[in-house]
Amino acid sequence: MRKINEECGIFGIYCNKQQQDVASLAYYGLYALQHRGQEACGITVNDDGIFTTYKDRGLVNEVFTHNHLAALGKGNMAVGHVRYGTAGGNGRENAQPIVVNHIKGSMAICHNGNLTNSYELRTALEEQGSIFHSTSDTEVIAYMITKERVSCKSIEEAVTRAVDKIEGAYSLVIMSPSKLIAVRDKNGFRPLCYGKRADGSYVVASETCALDAINAKFIREINPGEIVEFSEEGITTITEHCKKREPSFCVFEYIYFARPDSVMNGISVHNARLRAGAFLAEEYPVVADVVIGVPDSGIDAAVGYSRASGIPYEIGFIKNKYIGRTFIVPGQKTREDKVRIKLNVIKEVVANKRVVLVDDSIVRGTTSARIVNLLREAGAKEVHMRITAPPFTNPCYYGTDIDSKEYLIACQHTNEQIRDIIGVDSLGYLSIENARRLAGDNVKGFCTACFDGNYPTSIPKHTSKHRFERKISENKAENEENN
Amino acid sequence: MRKINEECGIFGIYCNKQQQDVASLAYYGLYALQHRGQEACGITVNDDGIFTTYKDRGLVNEVFTHNHLAALGKGNMAVGHVRYGTAGGNGRENAQPIVVNHIKGSMAICHNGNLTNSYELRTALEEQGSIFHSTSDTEVIAYMITKERVSCKSIEEAVTRAVDKIEGAYSLVIMSPSKLIAVRDKNGFRPLCYGKRADGSYVVASETCALDAINAKFIREINPGEIVEFSEEGITTITEHCKKREPSFCVFEYIYFARPDSVMNGISVHNARLRAGAFLAEEYPVVADVVIGVPDSGIDAAVGYSRASGIPYEIGFIKNKYIGRTFIVPGQKTREDKVRIKLNVIKEVVANKRVVLVDDSIVRGTTSARIVNLLREAGAKEVHMRITAPPFTNPCYYGTDIDSKEYLIACQHTNEQIRDIIGVDSLGYLSIENARRLAGDNVKGFCTACFDGNYPTSIPKHTSKHRFERKISENKAENEENN
Amino acid sequence: MRKINEECGIFGIYCNKQQQDVASLAYYGLYALQHRGQEACGITVNDDGIFTTYKDRGLVNEVFTHNHLAALGKGNMAVGHVRYGTAGGNGRENAQPIVVNHIKGSMAICHNGNLTNSYELRTALEEQGSIFHSTSDTEVIAYMITKERVSCKSIEEAVTRAVDKIEGAYSLVIMSPSKLIAVRDKNGFRPLCYGKRADGSYVVASETCALDAINAKFIREINPGEIVEFSEEGITTITEHCKKREPSFCVFEYIYFARPDSVMNGISVHNARLRAGAFLAEEYPVVADVVIGVPDSGIDAAVGYSRASGIPYEIGFIKNKYIGRTFIVPGQKTREDKVRIKLNVIKEVVANKRVVLVDDSIVRGTTSARIVNLLREAGAKEVHMRITAPPFTNPCYYGTDIDSKEYLIACQHTNEQIRDIIGVDSLGYLSIENARRLAGDNVKGFCTACFDGNYPTSIPKHTSKHRFERKISENKAENEENN
Amino acid sequence: MRKINEECGIFGIYCNKQQQDVASLAYYGLYALQHRGQEACGITVNDDGIFTTYKDRGLVNEVFTHNHLAALGKGNMAVGHVRYGTAGGNGRENAQPIVVNHIKGSMAICHNGNLTNSYELRTALEEQGSIFHSTSDTEVIAYMITKERVSCKSIEEAVTRAVDKIEGAYSLVIMSPSKLIAVRDKNGFRPLCYGKRADGSYVVASETCALDAINAKFIREINPGEIVEFSEEGITTITEHCKKREPSFCVFEYIYFARPDSVMNGISVHNARLRAGAFLAEEYPVVADVVIGVPDSGIDAAVGYSRASGIPYEIGFIKNKYIGRTFIVPGQKTREDKVRIKLNVIKEVVANKRVVLVDDSIVRGTTSARIVNLLREAGAKEVHMRITAPPFTNPCYYGTDIDSKEYLIACQHTNEQIRDIIGVDSLGYLSIENARRLAGDNVKGFCTACFDGNYPTSIPKHTSKHRFERKISENKAENEENN
Repeated sequence: MRKINEECGIFGIYCNKQQQDVASLAYYGLYALQHRGQEACGITVNDDGIFTTYKDRGLVNEVFTHNHLAALGKGNMAVGHVRYGTAGGNGRENAQPIVVNHIKGSMAICHNGNLTNSYELRTALEEQGSIFHSTSDTEVIAYMITKERVSCKSIEEAVTRAVDKIEGAYSLVIMSPSKLIAVRDKNGFRPLCYGKRADGSYVVASETCALDAINAKFIREINPGEIVEFSEEGITTITEHCKKREPSFCVFEYIYFARPDSVMNGISVHNARLRAGAFLAEEYPVVADVVIGVPDSGIDAAVGYSRASGIPYEIGFIKNKYIGRTFIVPGQKTREDKVRIKLNVIKEVVANKRVVLVDDSIVRGTTSARIVNLLREAGAKEVHMRITAPPFTNPCYYGTDIDSKEYLIACQHTNEQIRDIIGVDSLGYLSIENARRLAGDNVKGFCTACFDGNYPTSIPKHTSKHRFERKISENKAENEENN
Repeated sequence: MRKINEECGIFGIYCNKQQQDVASLAYYGLYALQHRGQEACGITVNDDGIFTTYKDRGLVNEVFTHNHLAALGKGNMAVGHVRYGTAGGNGRENAQPIVVNHIKGSMAICHNGNLTNSYELRTALEEQGSIFHSTSDTEVIAYMITKERVSCKSIEEAVTRAVDKIEGAYSLVIMSPSKLIAVRDKNGFRPLCYGKRADGSYVVASETCALDAINAKFIREINPGEIVEFSEEGITTITEHCKKREPSFCVFEYIYFARPDSVMNGISVHNARLRAGAFLAEEYPVVADVVIGVPDSGIDAAVGYSRASGIPYEIGFIKNKYIGRTFIVPGQKTREDKVRIKLNVIKEVVANKRVVLVDDSIVRGTTSARIVNLLREAGAKEVHMRITAPPFTNPCYYGTDIDSKEYLIACQHTNEQIRDIIGVDSLGYLSIENARRLAGDNVKGFCTACFDGNYPTSIPKHTSKHRFERKISENKAENEENN
Repeated sequence: MRKINEECGIFGIYCNKQQQDVASLAYYGLYALQHRGQEACGITVNDDGIFTTYKDRGLVNEVFTHNHLAALGKGNMAVGHVRYGTAGGNGRENAQPIVVNHIKGSMAICHNGNLTNSYELRTALEEQGSIFHSTSDTEVIAYMITKERVSCKSIEEAVTRAVDKIEGAYSLVIMSPSKLIAVRDKNGFRPLCYGKRADGSYVVASETCALDAINAKFIREINPGEIVEFSEEGITTITEHCKKREPSFCVFEYIYFARPDSVMNGISVHNARLRAGAFLAEEYPVVADVVIGVPDSGIDAAVGYSRASGIPYEIGFIKNKYIGRTFIVPGQKTREDKVRIKLNVIKEVVANKRVVLVDDSIVRGTTSARIVNLLREAGAKEVHMRITAPPFTNPCYYGTDIDSKEYLIACQHTNEQIRDIIGVDSLGYLSIENARRLAGDNVKGFCTACFDGNYPTSIPKHTSKHRFERKISENKAENEENN
Repeated sequence: MRKINEECGIFGIYCNKQQQDVASLAYYGLYALQHRGQEACGITVNDDGIFTTYKDRGLVNEVFTHNHLAALGKGNMAVGHVRYGTAGGNGRENAQPIVVNHIKGSMAICHNGNLTNSYELRTALEEQGSIFHSTSDTEVIAYMITKERVSCKSIEEAVTRAVDKIEGAYSLVIMSPSKLIAVRDKNGFRPLCYGKRADGSYVVASETCALDAINAKFIREINPGEIVEFSEEGITTITEHCKKREPSFCVFEYIYFARPDSVMNGISVHNARLRAGAFLAEEYPVVADVVIGVPDSGIDAAVGYSRASGIPYEIGFIKNKYIGRTFIVPGQKTREDKVRIKLNVIKEVVANKRVVLVDDSIVRGTTSARIVNLLREAGAKEVHMRITAPPFTNPCYYGTDIDSKEYLIACQHTNEQIRDIIGVDSLGYLSIENARRLAGDNVKGFCTACFDGNYPTSIPKHTSKHRFERKISENKAENEENN
């Protein structure tokens, strides 16, 4: 049950002087990053300065056919993107990579994150007569770089100057005719790493699972504030440009966004979730017969809770694995029915049992209530809900759609009220303190703003982009059910 | 990793005198049965004797759009089918329901299973000048019924006479202008059950998970050899027609085919798999650090093994959940790479560990070898493979594609050889004796012919249908990788 | 403006012992015959007895992609079909070729025409327990042949026996594993001819334009009642089977159905239409300034009228040539508007002029009235309508959809009334006598039953097929506008 | 047989304060303009300042389904575009309308023509750091306007300033949140007119046939150099901004581009072509039996030649009207064969005849040679070719793809050589003098630069845009065959 969505996954590959089937490699890389965005995707291949792009709405395996990949052709570099975007309209214009032509040639750019000063930057650009084809921050970044590029000797110099002016969360891969550049913002909100394949080509990706998919050996994460350039000269790194800042990695990457097999800050997401489960067992012990997780992201933590508590782990739900982006919900189905179609309880597992139910988060609470109801119908005697995140109480400005307060149940209700709304016997949220310990006791520097309001940067003055956007997505609530 | 495929899932709904959105209900039912066949699907709606059908190649949510369901319209009955079929050609002609027009009106038929005397029946029909549009057994059954129908007073009488002439495995739902009929062969090879919705409509389905999906209450399984008719007069059951025979339910339904949340013979498939894991722990104990399962069907048994052995259960693999029917494998990927794209190891879980690896079966052995290799690369110190089925040594004639002996590794090699081919430190198969105990010690009557060659019926004299078939699927081996 | 539709165009190619790209040749042949049917099309390739078929709803260039043609593969024979079919439902099951499997192998069959005793034949077959997948006469013909085939030594013998039992209009191409057979009914209602390519392969087609398209030299027409077999032994012709009968070729093939460049009975359709125009000039002379034709089929006759009358020929209408099968008519358009979108008047040509307007037929009269109105709006002073056919007063049972009397304006109204309804100053229909002279004064033997009710065969007792058909097309009137 | 392609057709509708189904009206308008561009099309609807766009590659009736039009919704303004574009790549980014967001809101722009100083303008913009998403001149125009818009009070003022800086051929429709603006360049190269519907809404279109299609009454053409604004205040016209210049309307609009029923400079294109035929009869008389035209654009002139010469007009070719954008040419077809598939000769018309063959132009000569060959094969005794245009000897910089000299047969060969290459007995081109008289003896001011090299503006210094373009279309020659 997806409830919160991040904006993107990014990918880049650089094969020095070697013309390779980079389109296929990008395809596999994006496929491994698909969980980071299911609305749209795209690939740009660079064949000795000639850029060819294909992008559209849909999943990687819907958008790209053999014909499309063949049309992209071989090349010595490629960048790719998977996108989660707010619904409404055709939306093709917001798909990435964004490819622009400027005075020094072409540039392709892929972005994961959200700027906090894009309103100001965009307004300033518009006052100079600039035109925008999309409403995305990425187009603002592209402009910032090309504006600098006019008076710079190199793309990396232009990037360096530009990123000193943009604020907020951004992991970027930028492709010029001859270079691939990876950038991570000073706070390091969103992950970005690189590795190397046996043939010497370099791979940049949001998560290590994309390196694994194409058999690239993980080298290291891009550091917060670092610019890494892959070119004929090899790897160059630029770090001096930005003032040192305390990193603030998004803790929700561990809790929900990232794939369990990805490694971030030296620890797998799976292990971080096992830790979350163990913390919850410690914070909220309970006498019960069985621990089950809500698929997919509650499963790992359920194993952790079981192991720490000694209560047997079980498989409580079967999720229909054929659900696709095109799944429709015809007929007069109630919301209860919709959950039932996607998730079925194994009755024998929970009937007459005291059940610990582990899930990753509660946003509005409606989906949680329906899941609990399924357990009750199946005969569960007690349901003790354990959430691997603290309560959401603040919006996120760094690239997730954790929304304004009126949609967050934890802003409107006490824990006791939430417990009753959801219909559980007990309810325990992970403490913020332990959330900060998910990656192990030695890894520090997390953003937990959505839980405690301590934003590591100044926040946008113009919190809405409505001046730039044509349609406000009305179907937020609907989406919660459908994903 | 799918390796063996069954032919079908079937569904029917009967709403006496009530015109309902039966197309949507069939859609949800088939969606829940999707794991039983991903090649093609179809629905026939019966609106007071007017039959409307839509069927095509593809998954339920690919084939049926809102427009298609609307075009099917409302009705008082519907039948539906999901199909696994051998690859090659357009194949639309083999999609079901098969709808035929005969002297007494229309008839739609959905079939799960394989006849053992279809060659003889078809040849006899052809000798009378009958024509066939497809190569499926289902068209033979349709003919057998309509031939009888000419001289019978009722559809159920024609069905009764016809099924006494057909041999082998067949679960059927048959829809006439005014009746819905469910049939299960005398051996009860394939499952079939029915339930009732709150509004009084009856639902027939291959598995209980389809009843759950549309909130129908399970009533009971159709008995081997039973014909159940749903009509204006209510439910009628016909059992006297067939000689009593010992049931021989396919044990592989528990091991691999059915969904874990489905209940068969009073036990959930999940529980049967937990038992399989426990039996393996008993039959092949080992000193190890961790038990992991191969997703998806090895997971339940891994939990069972862990619980019985005391060795901690862990999540060892992440399966890419966005793999779709349209997923392509472009580029010069090795077979190793293809497995890697679908399945990634969580390295921390297995590195420097002694691993018990639970999977459901070994057919040719190549996929198993690749999976083991992924574990070795990730640093597993020892790999002990446990298989929740006995070795395949005989072809299946009852609706699965367990193939002729030359493709079965267990026919060609000793256990020691297989162990070495796959690259594991130890290898244990479930014993046939325990396979027969999967549903609990009180449930008897299983077909284990693929393991021991004890076929519960006479077997086809003409084991190949090549006289009727136009193309032999050359891409068997390929399929093993792709599914 | 299409108003009447014929059922089909058929095509076959036989390349003795030569494996050729017969799929592409069939594609070009069908493309040339597209005007005979736009609803569905299909090709079956025979590669040494292995039949591969692709068929679907749509135009030839919509249904067949490079991939589909490649999948059909090479072969030494192929047959193909374009179909006009009544709307409603998915209709794929009625697409042709119909391929059936019977005791002696496979058979593909393509049919143009309509049987008059199919009800009786089908009922008799059903009484023997036969099942039907479609509602088409073609399936009945397939059965008749395969029933005979059981006790015959050869396919041609079975065909010979079968066609002696079927009545009505049928041009057929039949493909067995090793032979191609062309059949024309005794009356010769529908055209069928054959030719030869430079490489020695034989081509059968409904019209000569399909021979031209693939550079085959026309040899001759298949004679009424003739069976021509193309096989290893060369060409064999069977004629003795059927009682000699006066031919009755459909005169409407000249007036409307066939392509102007096709030659039938030794005269091009274009020339026959020129003659129609000249006859009208003689039968209904008028003082006028300009002669124009309604595109496309009124154009040739307008040239003929002009030449015979001395009144200048002009181009009065521009037809939008991008109208496609998928053209939609959104919004609140009146019927007047719909005509306007497809047909625009060149105002200078008709303003203040006395106009002779030549069209091929009047069915219900509504489209004619709208076309006349466009001329009036553009300033035409007088409009004199000349129709290249006599008035329709009787339904056709031989493969066109000239409908029952209540839809035919000429059955309900006098000529004067029709003139007023359509809004013309004068109205002249071609006389039946001259209609019989369209192919020149020496060619005899035409069916003019739709004009005079003189049916050359007994007519169906059961004029409706409603027992076999599921849906009656309600959108007849709508179609008149859209085509 | 299309041989030369223009770039676009444009359309706009303004319904003051009335929310209407403007998407459907734009659909019909574009459909009528389809002959001006078949590669891509698009519509932008403006609903009280909210812009919604749908555009894609393909014909109007391929791109727009009922769903797409419904998604565009109602509005009080819309603009639309059909585009011919050079082949290669996905090309969606070049589809129009181009919609940009700038400091004062949104703007949609549709353009027909080609700038002669776009290289200079674009380079200057790039030097300021501007980015370009496409390679089209239209994006340059959009920038020029928005740059001015920053310091202007109104959109019309910005347009006025911008168009004084752009040079070359441009007819534009521009839509701001509250206004629709139509612009024609000072030379009036490309047509543009407007009309009014009964409900008071105004319609702007490239040709009058689009007004006719939606029943709008033609008011007048936009004058060269005129800016016409449709707003709440009604119609405003701005003319003083540009220095008076002699108009130079593209004479090839009459000869080939425009639809015969469109009226330009007070004369229908059909009549202009009749005049072309008559001029040719005068300039190149010949003794012959029959005059035929090459469909579609040679037909009208053939009628004119016939009328002036007294030689009977005939229909010599049947063009397959089902050729679509998706038509493929599979198999080993020679180029001769490809022509044959699209065009068939009516043999009776030309056999043993002296034939005058009228066509609109000769570019490379290969298609002409093949057409003549078809006539010879059909038995034509003599073929006298008459071309309704003078020989092409110079490239066009104003929006057609008349190419550089190496592809123009008339640059490489004498008339006698061309006659021999094409295989005709005589060859006559329309004189430039008479080409200038096509619209009647009183209409002056034409561009005939492609025939005589007298460019009415300075021509581009940078004749190629290769710095901006990624791919050079290699398939020019191929296209000549396919269209």
